[in-house]
Amino acid sequence: MSDQDKLSAEDRLIARHFGPLATHPGALGLTDDAAFVSPPPGHDLVLKTDAIVGGVHFFAEDDASTVAQKALRVNLSDLAAKGAKPLGFLVSLALPQDIGDTWLGRFSSGLRADAEAYQCPLFGGDTDRTPGPVTVSVAMFGSVPHGTMVRRAGAKPGDRVFVSGTIGDAALGLVLRKDDNMGADWKLTDEQRAHLLSRYLLPQPRNALAEAVRMHASASMDISDGLAGDLTKLARVSGVAAQIDAARVPLSDAARAAVAADPAMLETALTGGDDFEIVCAVPPAQADSFRAAAFAAQVPVTEIGAVAAGEGVVFRDARGAPMSFKRLSFSHF
Amino acid sequence: MSDQDKLSAEDRLIARHFGPLATHPGALGLTDDAAFVSPPPGHDLVLKTDAIVGGVHFFAEDDASTVAQKALRVNLSDLAAKGAKPLGFLVSLALPQDIGDTWLGRFSSGLRADAEAYQCPLFGGDTDRTPGPVTVSVAMFGSVPHGTMVRRAGAKPGDRVFVSGTIGDAALGLVLRKDDNMGADWKLTDEQRAHLLSRYLLPQPRNALAEAVRMHASASMDISDGLAGDLTKLARVSGVAAQIDAARVPLSDAARAAVAADPAMLETALTGGDDFEIVCAVPPAQADSFRAAAFAAQVPVTEIGAVAAGEGVVFRDARGAPMSFKRLSFSHF
Repeated sequence: MSDQDKLSAEDRLIARHFGPLATHPGALGLTDDAAFVSPPPGHDLVLKTDAIVGGVHFFAEDDASTVAQKALRVNLSDLAAKGAKPLGFLVSLALPQDIGDTWLGRFSSGLRADAEAYQCPLFGGDTDRTPGPVTVSVAMFGSVPHGTMVRRAGAKPGDRVFVSGTIGDAALGLVLRKDDNMGADWKLTDEQRAHLLSRYLLPQPRNALAEAVRMHASASMDISDGLAGDLTKLARVSGVAAQIDAARVPLSDAARAAVAADPAMLETALTGGDDFEIVCAVPPAQADSFRAAAFAAQVPVTEIGAVAAGEGVVFRDARGAPMSFKRLSFSHF
Repeated sequence: MSDQDKLSAEDRLIARHFGPLATHPGALGLTDDAAFVSPPPGHDLVLKTDAIVGGVHFFAEDDASTVAQKALRVNLSDLAAKGAKPLGFLVSLALPQDIGDTWLGRFSSGLRADAEAYQCPLFGGDTDRTPGPVTVSVAMFGSVPHGTMVRRAGAKPGDRVFVSGTIGDAALGLVLRKDDNMGADWKLTDEQRAHLLSRYLLPQPRNALAEAVRMHASASMDISDGLAGDLTKLARVSGVAAQIDAARVPLSDAARAAVAADPAMLETALTGGDDFEIVCAVPPAQADSFRAAAFAAQVPVTEIGAVAAGEGVVFRDARGAPMSFKRLSFSHF
C-alpha cells in the first residue's frame, strides 16, 4: 500500500466532504490540528455551543442537509440575540456505522449553504463513530465591539418587551410531526400545515436583527425553550418582572387557525420550544429607533408587553386575567 | 409551582455542577446564552474541537472525572503542539437517561481540576439527553502572538525530528485494557502495568512545552493517532520526507519490557494512538535552544531522526533496514 492508501478513512472523509467549506485561510483547508483567526481589533469574541441529537432534536429520517442547517442555525440564533456577528464555527460529528457517503454529502452541502448564507465559515471539526444516534455538536464564535454583547441581564422597569417574527409555529409543527392524527381537527390548509412543519424542521435565525438588538436592547435572548420560560429566565437574571399581553404575541395564520380550533394550543405556542426568534427588552426612548432598525433589516418585531419592578412573568389573556401554564418551557431533563 | 420549580432540570443541573467552573467574568456564571472574552491584543485565536464517545474512546466503567479530564486534555494537547496558550473551552454533553447526579458530580470535579491546572476556564456548555452512549465534545480556544501558530506545514530538509516524553505507552495500555490475558507474557511488574494503563486512561498533554515549540519548531503536531501515521501527515503537508531511527524513539521501561517480550509490540507502539506527545521538526540551528527550552520546561524531548527532501516517512530498525508497518495509524473509520 502507498502511504496515501494507508492514510485513515477519516482524513479522506474530511478532505472530501468538509475541506471545501473551510474557506477562511486560517482554517488551513482542514489539513492541520487546529485553525487560527484574528478577531477584529477592539472586539470581544462571543462563544456558544449547542448540539442536536438524532431522535431527540431531529428525526432519523430528516434530510441530512436539514440536520446540518439546524445544528448551525440553533447556534447562529444565539449570536443574533447577543448582537454578535458570526466569525465561524467548529463542528463535532458522532456518526453511527451505517452513515455513509450519501448522508455525508447531503450533510456537508447543507452546512456549506448556510456557511455561505450566514458568512460563517468552517474552522475545524472532528468525526467519530458512535454506537448511538447521529450527534452534531457545533461551537460557534462571533464578535461584538468590546463590551457590547447584549446579555439576559440588563432589562429595567419600564422597558418594552419585543419579539421577532411569530411565536409557537415550531412547537405546533412538532405536534403535527409527532403524530399524523394530531392537528387533524385544526382544519389547516396544506400551506398552513407545511408552514408549521417547516418551522420545526428548519429554524430561521434572526441574524439580520443582531445590529438592531446590539444598538437598542437592554437585554436579549433567543427563544429556544419557549417564550414563557425563556422570558422568565431573562427577567430573573435582570432582577425584574414582566407583564405580557398574550393577545399581542404575534402568531402566524397557521398558528392562529390551530389555536382557534383548539384553544389549548395557545399554551403550546407560548411555552413550546424551537422558535429561534428573539425576545428583548428595549428602553422606551429607544423603542422607535429599534422598530426602525428592525424595519430596515426586514425583520418583523412586535411589542408584547413591558418590564416592571418585582419578579416573575405574567401573561394576561384578552380579558386581562393572568394565565396559568402547566410548565413554562420545554426540557429534555 | 413557583417559577423556580418550573425552571428546567437542565438549568439546575448546569448551575449546580458547572456554574462553579465558569470562573471567567465573561462566562457570566453560565446564566446567559453565550459568553464573551477579549483575546490578548495582537494575538490570534487558535481553535480546536475533539469529542470522546463512550465505548469508543473510553470505557463505560471509567471514572467520570477521568472521562472529563480526557475530553479536555485531548484538546489541550493540540494547543500545546500548535504553540498556543489555553484561553478557555466550551463543552457539549450528550447523556444517557441513567446518568445522574453522582456521575455528573464526578465529571464536573474532573473538569474543574483540569480547568484550574491548565488555566483554562469553562465558558459555556450544552447538555442533552441521548439514547446513545455518553458523548463529550469539547471546543477549545487558545491564543498565540499574531501569525505564530505552529503548523504541520513548515518542516524543511535538514530539520531534526523531536518527540516529547515516551511513545507507545497508551497503545500498549489499551492492549492490556482490552483483554486481561493480553500482555500476560510481557512479564511486567505491577508498576509497569499500572504505568501503561494510566497512560491510556489519562493523557498528559505537553502544554508546558508550547512556548518552546512556538519559539523553535518549524512544524509540529500532537501524536494522537500514532507516531508513524501522524509524522507521515506532517511530512506530506510540509512536502518533505523523514528518516527515523526506531531505536532512538523513546520508550518507557514498561514499553521496553513489552517489546522485549513480544517484538511485534514495537509496531503497536510506533503506530498506536493516544500518545498525546508532541512530534516536531526543528531547524539544526535551533536544536540546542529547543533542547534548553524543553529542559527548562521540564519536558523530556528526544531527537529521533531528520527531515529530508522527497516524500514518505521511513523508520529504520537497529540494523538500518527500513521497517514495514501493517498500518500507519489508528482509525475508527
